[in-house]
Amino acid sequence: MKRAKLVIGLLGIMLFLAACGNLNSSSMSSSGTNGSKGTQLTGQSTDSNYEGVIENGKYVTSKSRGVSNTQDAGNQLNLKSFEKGLLNVSQQEFSTNKYAFREGQILTKKVVSNWLARESKSNADGLNPKDNGSTSATKRNPIYLQQLEEQDYMIQKNNKLSLGGITIGLGINSVDYYKKTQYGATYETKISKAEAEKQGKAIANKVLMRLRQYDSLKNVPIVIALYRQASDDSLVGGNFFAYSVNKNGTTKVKSWEKLNQKSYVFPIADSQTSPNTNDTTSFDNFKNEVEDFFPNLSGVTAQAQYTNNQLDGMNVNITTQFYSQTEIISFTQFLQTAAQKYLPAKVPIDIQVSSTEGVQSFLSRSENGKKFTTHVFNSY
Amino acid sequence: MKRAKLVIGLLGIMLFLAACGNLNSSSMSSSGTNGSKGTQLTGQSTDSNYEGVIENGKYVTSKSRGVSNTQDAGNQLNLKSFEKGLLNVSQQEFSTNKYAFREGQILTKKVVSNWLARESKSNADGLNPKDNGSTSATKRNPIYLQQLEEQDYMIQKNNKLSLGGITIGLGINSVDYYKKTQYGATYETKISKAEAEKQGKAIANKVLMRLRQYDSLKNVPIVIALYRQASDDSLVGGNFFAYSVNKNGTTKVKSWEKLNQKSYVFPIADSQTSPNTNDTTSFDNFKNEVEDFFPNLSGVTAQAQYTNNQLDGMNVNITTQFYSQTEIISFTQFLQTAAQKYLPAKVPIDIQVSSTEGVQSFLSRSENGKKFTTHVFNSY
Repeated sequence: MKRAKLVIGLLGIMLFLAACGNLNSSSMSSSGTNGSKGTQLTGQSTDSNYEGVIENGKYVTSKSRGVSNTQDAGNQLNLKSFEKGLLNVSQQEFSTNKYAFREGQILTKKVVSNWLARESKSNADGLNPKDNGSTSATKRNPIYLQQLEEQDYMIQKNNKLSLGGITIGLGINSVDYYKKTQYGATYETKISKAEAEKQGKAIANKVLMRLRQYDSLKNVPIVIALYRQASDDSLVGGNFFAYSVNKNGTTKVKSWEKLNQKSYVFPIADSQTSPNTNDTTSFDNFKNEVEDFFPNLSGVTAQAQYTNNQLDGMNVNITTQFYSQTEIISFTQFLQTAAQKYLPAKVPIDIQVSSTEGVQSFLSRSENGKKFTTHVFNSY
Repeated sequence: MKRAKLVIGLLGIMLFLAACGNLNSSSMSSSGTNGSKGTQLTGQSTDSNYEGVIENGKYVTSKSRGVSNTQDAGNQLNLKSFEKGLLNVSQQEFSTNKYAFREGQILTKKVVSNWLARESKSNADGLNPKDNGSTSATKRNPIYLQQLEEQDYMIQKNNKLSLGGITIGLGINSVDYYKKTQYGATYETKISKAEAEKQGKAIANKVLMRLRQYDSLKNVPIVIALYRQASDDSLVGGNFFAYSVNKNGTTKVKSWEKLNQKSYVFPIADSQTSPNTNDTTSFDNFKNEVEDFFPNLSGVTAQAQYTNNQLDGMNVNITTQFYSQTEIISFTQFLQTAAQKYLPAKVPIDIQVSSTEGVQSFLSRSENGKKFTTHVFNSY
């Protein structure tokens, strides 16, 4: 099947991209939509996304799908930001036009479950410390490792996809929530940044050593990234704070790259320090203007992420009670102008407008875009 | 303030539009974002939308905001499709580049409430028939008029906005739901198409006569559009079936334009006839391909609207249980290819992907677009 070489970016700009180098082969379809046998790729929606791997028309889901200490409870924002952040870290080593993405196929559900648990007589593989019996917040051994994810990066060799390397994300708690009795109250053990870094790096070394035992992982680069989980009451997820690229065969992490990332919720609470007064003023002006414009507006907030104190992007959430579709249309038009006027330039920004009925409209601007594109959700 | 003359359409294509003729004036700002006094417009996101009216930085909401027999209960889909449809009908008479949109400012909450009620001793203005005392589904007088909406269309004269005409939408029930006793069971009186048309046209004549009593409405065109409400269990809203353009001063509707619109839910139920076998087959193939691709996919449905048996557009809804952001990204890429391959060409199509956590991604293609644009909702 011929590969579509035309990729239309979301943000109103047509991007003409040469089809991706090594992945472009006549023997491999870029579309999973012909129901044919064999391995295929999902196709690429933008050049900053990996193509995904399809086998016999079905998406290849992770072998350890759904296994995490956070799956049942905890802050769901950690899940999204962890996964998306891990893709971003992976791009440092595995470029999107050379590698395809496959959900982790090496570590099984059982292996990951054992690794995420405490070390114990019945589970020698536990990467979390033994239970020392204490229930005191400061004396007990907390759960450090909250989630672990494998991402596989595939390259094409002899017209087949083969493993080109993997990335492992380790989510380390900032707070470990625990109960003294079943169904009892929840207590917290706080874990400092320094402690999380120390523990995370130690766990990374164990993980690297174990991964090299797998035949398929003996001679590929293994990227390991460390993420600090946000607390359960946070309105943003956590952040990656370090990663290492471990070349073929190495069994010990030689060096770590520091990542200086931090996420904020706007408006900034009085108790918090502002990451950048220009940005916070911009947001506050936007918020005031928008709240003035419309009755029944119940909230204007944003998530903002900074790397090395530079704004990476912003997700604005506006919730309100609407009475009519015409109000939504007019409000969205108004936002298009207000957002361009007030919100920080030269970073990607999403704005989502919701009511109790769900999402009503959204606006988006890419890093280099000027105007926001808009979409109002209609119904027949 | 200088008007931005560059309008970027949602769908990946840059539209260069001349700023709208009569609305383009140095005395009127197209943006409500400077907090200044006087009348402003929201700005136009696409050329098929009206600009909205802002007064002193605040959006001018309808005088009868929130008044409807359907506000508390009933099928919410009727509200969205009624309002959006009414805008479309209005474009027949009031072009989007000559007229701005203002929410209804002439009929007050009290007037609309009285008109929507039954005629009675205490309410001579009721447009619904007197209660005849019967509770029999076939013998009682049902509520015909379920909702009424005024939309004002403004033109610029002497650097001020003035009323150029109005549109009135009348929502006529297909089923009237009623109770015999308070908190009792709900019963239904069915209203045939012929009866709804007859009653709707009679009500329209009364409304036109009454509107001409308002000084501001004596000499403007008044568009009246008739909408057949969908039943409460419908998964699509109702449809407009007729409209009339009543020139300056006329107090009786001279002629009606027929609208042959119908909405469907895909997949088509076995008991229903298909509007077009090509479209239903296309959708079924898409649905099968998509359901094959991904585990835990709980539903692929669509709303489709037809005018004169031609497909106007489609809203596809896909709901599923996702475990990870990477699955959503890959699934969205896959959909981009599958939708282009299977879904009907040359009509606007929206695809929304949701989980229990809310909307996860969406895809959209304009009437003349080829590729779908995609957006995956991220979180920091």
